Amino acid sequence: VVESWSFLDTVESNFRPLVVIELAKGTKEETIEWFTKRIVDKKANGGAQLLIKPLVMENGVENIYLVGASHLRLLLGAETVGLVKECSDNSMRTFTYSSRKTFKDFADDNHNFLTMAECQYIIKHELENLRAKNEKMIPGYPQAKLYPGKSIVRRLLTSGILVQIFPLHDREELKKLRHSWYGRVKVGYQPLDDIRCYFGETIALYFGFLEYFTFALIPMAVIGIPYYVFAWEDYDKYVMFATFNLLWSTVILEVWKRICAILTYRWGTLLMKRQFEEPRPGFHGVLGINPVTGREEPVYSSLKRQLRIYLVSLPFVCLCLYFSLYVMMIYFDLEQWALDYHKENESNFSNLMLYVPSIIYAVVIEIMNRIYRYAAEFLTSWENHRLESSYQNHLILKVLVFNFLNCFASLFYIAFVLFDMKLLRQSLATLLITSQILNQFAESLLPYWLQKRYNRRMKKRMCSQKTDRDLSVAEQVNMEKEMGTYLGTFDDYLELFLQFGYVSLFSCVYPLAAVFAVLNNITEIYSDALKMCRVYKRPFAEPTANIGVWQLAFETMSVISVVTNCILIGMSPQVDALFPDSKMDLVLTVALVEHLLLAIKFIMAFVIPDKPRDIQMKLAKLEFESLEALKQQVRAFQMQL
Amino acid sequence: VVESWSFLDTVESNFRPLVVIELAKGTKEETIEWFTKRIVDKKANGGAQLLIKPLVMENGVENIYLVGASHLRLLLGAETVGLVKECSDNSMRTFTYSSRKTFKDFADDNHNFLTMAECQYIIKHELENLRAKNEKMIPGYPQAKLYPGKSIVRRLLTSGILVQIFPLHDREELKKLRHSWYGRVKVGYQPLDDIRCYFGETIALYFGFLEYFTFALIPMAVIGIPYYVFAWEDYDKYVMFATFNLLWSTVILEVWKRICAILTYRWGTLLMKRQFEEPRPGFHGVLGINPVTGREEPVYSSLKRQLRIYLVSLPFVCLCLYFSLYVMMIYFDLEQWALDYHKENESNFSNLMLYVPSIIYAVVIEIMNRIYRYAAEFLTSWENHRLESSYQNHLILKVLVFNFLNCFASLFYIAFVLFDMKLLRQSLATLLITSQILNQFAESLLPYWLQKRYNRRMKKRMCSQKTDRDLSVAEQVNMEKEMGTYLGTFDDYLELFLQFGYVSLFSCVYPLAAVFAVLNNITEIYSDALKMCRVYKRPFAEPTANIGVWQLAFETMSVISVVTNCILIGMSPQVDALFPDSKMDLVLTVALVEHLLLAIKFIMAFVIPDKPRDIQMKLAKLEFESLEALKQQVRAFQMQL
Repeated sequence: VVESWSFLDTVESNFRPLVVIELAKGTKEETIEWFTKRIVDKKANGGAQLLIKPLVMENGVENIYLVGASHLRLLLGAETVGLVKECSDNSMRTFTYSSRKTFKDFADDNHNFLTMAECQYIIKHELENLRAKNEKMIPGYPQAKLYPGKSIVRRLLTSGILVQIFPLHDREELKKLRHSWYGRVKVGYQPLDDIRCYFGETIALYFGFLEYFTFALIPMAVIGIPYYVFAWEDYDKYVMFATFNLLWSTVILEVWKRICAILTYRWGTLLMKRQFEEPRPGFHGVLGINPVTGREEPVYSSLKRQLRIYLVSLPFVCLCLYFSLYVMMIYFDLEQWALDYHKENESNFSNLMLYVPSIIYAVVIEIMNRIYRYAAEFLTSWENHRLESSYQNHLILKVLVFNFLNCFASLFYIAFVLFDMKLLRQSLATLLITSQILNQFAESLLPYWLQKRYNRRMKKRMCSQKTDRDLSVAEQVNMEKEMGTYLGTFDDYLELFLQFGYVSLFSCVYPLAAVFAVLNNITEIYSDALKMCRVYKRPFAEPTANIGVWQLAFETMSVISVVTNCILIGMSPQVDALFPDSKMDLVLTVALVEHLLLAIKFIMAFVIPDKPRDIQMKLAKLEFESLEALKQQVRAFQMQL
Repeated sequence: VVESWSFLDTVESNFRPLVVIELAKGTKEETIEWFTKRIVDKKANGGAQLLIKPLVMENGVENIYLVGASHLRLLLGAETVGLVKECSDNSMRTFTYSSRKTFKDFADDNHNFLTMAECQYIIKHELENLRAKNEKMIPGYPQAKLYPGKSIVRRLLTSGILVQIFPLHDREELKKLRHSWYGRVKVGYQPLDDIRCYFGETIALYFGFLEYFTFALIPMAVIGIPYYVFAWEDYDKYVMFATFNLLWSTVILEVWKRICAILTYRWGTLLMKRQFEEPRPGFHGVLGINPVTGREEPVYSSLKRQLRIYLVSLPFVCLCLYFSLYVMMIYFDLEQWALDYHKENESNFSNLMLYVPSIIYAVVIEIMNRIYRYAAEFLTSWENHRLESSYQNHLILKVLVFNFLNCFASLFYIAFVLFDMKLLRQSLATLLITSQILNQFAESLLPYWLQKRYNRRMKKRMCSQKTDRDLSVAEQVNMEKEMGTYLGTFDDYLELFLQFGYVSLFSCVYPLAAVFAVLNNITEIYSDALKMCRVYKRPFAEPTANIGVWQLAFETMSVISVVTNCILIGMSPQVDALFPDSKMDLVLTVALVEHLLLAIKFIMAFVIPDKPRDIQMKLAKLEFESLEALKQQVRAFQMQL
């Protein structure tokens, strides 16, 4: 059988380029030779056993390589990364090469058994797992140190020798996907399974969440409309709306967990075993022994990291929060000053002056958000987390807290210090709508337009009569390598998180917020889809089983919104009028209701199972089977005694 | 090697009785023959391959059997149940017979490698896993139906043919344990590892929790004493005490998780894989196909169970809660009436009458608790849960809610309706102290005294000059089979839970509660130890990795105590005096502080890791090793291609 390996490896007639490697211009010959040899070398020799082909560009520079793999190699790789696929009996199982016949749609000549995104994920995994053996450094670059077990690709990336690795688009597939996703105007669900096949689970899950969240907001929007149309201002209607809102937000977050389980079970990632996480590229430390793996690698004292987090990062974040509040206070002072000025000398100029403070404040908020984001990234990177996941969690936490305060502090101030419900409603509406418009513009349409202009120029330069479809691989690579890199779902989730805040925190004051959120999300789906398909390089698929820390963030927001809504209702003049004699009774009643609602929320979160019953059963069945298999093994062994 | 099996199996010279099986008197011969044959039969024939010996009693009746096993059989059984033992390199690993040489203290002739409790657990597991093959019924008892895969022992138990199965005490070991546990007056820790070796992890963990909890209460007790001694009544001191108390209770519950992880890691249960749970003995249903196992067994619709829970059990519990509150109101009416009566006609009789209501109420509470307990057990059993764990959780929840209300409702009423702090303090002290005394008496000393009297009579009847040590096995079995059965740690945890409530719910009113709790717990350790060693049959060891639902119960209690303490402090006249102008400000301040405290609690629970760093590392190491082993396997397989 050994021959078949080598045989398949050398057949380049059906070489299908999957991943592009771009090296820095002027990379030394010996480095290139060493690196490509490692990529094609046999597994037994520590290679990745992939196929690689240089891409000769017009100008003769040869710094771009296409990577592919034989069908057999990909199947073996699928076993290595622990892919979970559907079996013929509709159950999901971890793919192994020896049991390949039991999987649905498997045939030795069916090259579509693995989706292209899966193939690219496998290649990325194999490349990243190319590890240094005895090399002390990257040949040709003595300053790029290696130690046994260090990922070669990561060192090449941090040394700047490797510019980027990215998966190629499949222009045929992409066209089909575009058509079914946003190509025609239709009412219906997104083709989540197709999105998952093309972009991987993380991105498909984001779009799934976006869609689910939009549908979940519709009841709130529908109930909110009559409040606007009939100008209902009765307190009992507000109370009803707010109560519905609070319970509803708990229900939707719990139900999302179930839907997420259904989706990821179908995609196989719910069952996928967590791989052992390697140190992130930026992690540094003195060479030592990792107590977990027993391997030599950089280690960094956890105590030092804790000190950095609690003695530097935490105070810094608090300082930023304080600064943000300080700026807000200045804004309110300015606002007051402008109002006074306008009252004293009423003129066109003074009328214009009224708008100046909010414009300045909006600009300052935006600037602060950006500066803070850089600072947070720098600090989190300086905290020197070993794992990417821990880095991400710390970064998300920092950015989340600051964004929350920056966006909502002025609303809180208006609501609970100024007690001005009218101003609150007005500010809320302005903030929500402008932030939505700005986001949509800055996030999707602007890059799309820039990209389109660039593409047009590119095409003109290359060969003006060709259409998209006829592009050669070289032209395709050339175009895609210049596209922007999609930096993950962080900003998209953050936008949804803040939107959820606008909708739920002050829902009883402005029931129309849900309507705007729904409208925004419908266009958001289209503009995000456009962004993914047209603006950015194809991202590598990332298997994931849930939306991670965002679930917690949304749940926290819904707890906070119980508190704010109860206070708002308590402050409304209609409720006030119900307790003419004693304000005490009012406050006590509000506090009681709030505690009851919180208790109901927690009980609901506890009672609603996180996974639907049939998924639970399927998981139990798999667990039972593996236990039985183990028992059989033990029994078979004991029989031999 | 096959011979060695049979060889070891027939050597009865070193037969060590471990477990006792008591059949009903007059069990048919054919049943006994069939059952014992299954017990000794080879694994390959569907037997348990254990050793069994009838115990001939004085009166010639032969209904008691001793079960043992060869050393080899026990080692193989240890692999089957998935025991985790310490290796020579101090790491904890799942025991397998093939890797036995790598384990610490393993030697082929070291029969103490497995503790006696482990051996008994293995035998119990093997007996319970004796499954029907083709038998349609138990031979001799046509009404005792069997189906393929049904546990024979469970069917024998539910048919009343099998009276009981219990493990034998080891009188030598027990004596040593008693001595080091409570035999001498000393200050120090309990011998938790020895307790675990003798009684198993569940019981050892209870005693570990009891000890930990007692130590954790000491700081609260120490701080509480000066409040009593100097009669401090300043509000700021109370606030300090309550704040300390609230944060402290969060810290101790989080730290317990870490200590629990340390203990159970050392005992191996933290790593032990969960076994597939069989239906509990009382579970019934129509014969169908279990969707998880694919086996034929009784199935019961989950929808029906949900209906029973939500339409019958839930309303019933609510009704009971209402009734309990109603009784409490009657008590307060009676109290008032007695007071009025005493005022009107002051006499010795009226003075006595003052005590009547509380006596009646105490008796009624006790009666209600008992009746409710039966009702809860009946209802939960009627809900027909398939798994013992789910049955237990539902039972615990029902009993917990009712006990909580029954014990604390009157205190809540006094505190938040009558606003009588003096009465609250007095009631709290009375309830706490009397419940402690009653519990200690009813739980340990009374059964101990009864048991002692019975033993004395037994011994006199049998052979008056023998001491404990010289008892023959027959006499020992005869004595132990009459001892009470320990029904699990439920009541012990419940007692601690209610105590925690007394200490934390109203801690700012009665700082001395912690002192009484500490004193009670010190004697509780002794009386519980006495109970375990002297009063009850030895229980089977139950591996467990944590205290389960009780962790949640204690955490919920500590959340509730934040609310109650904040309200109590807000109501105190000293705090009242701080806000002379506006009661509103007072209430708002209290609400703000409460929310802050709750937020701090949740953040603390989130920030403190559940497992200490070194345990995390050890677990990560094991996970890494198993992933590596899997990868090696895959690689080795792929090399063959």
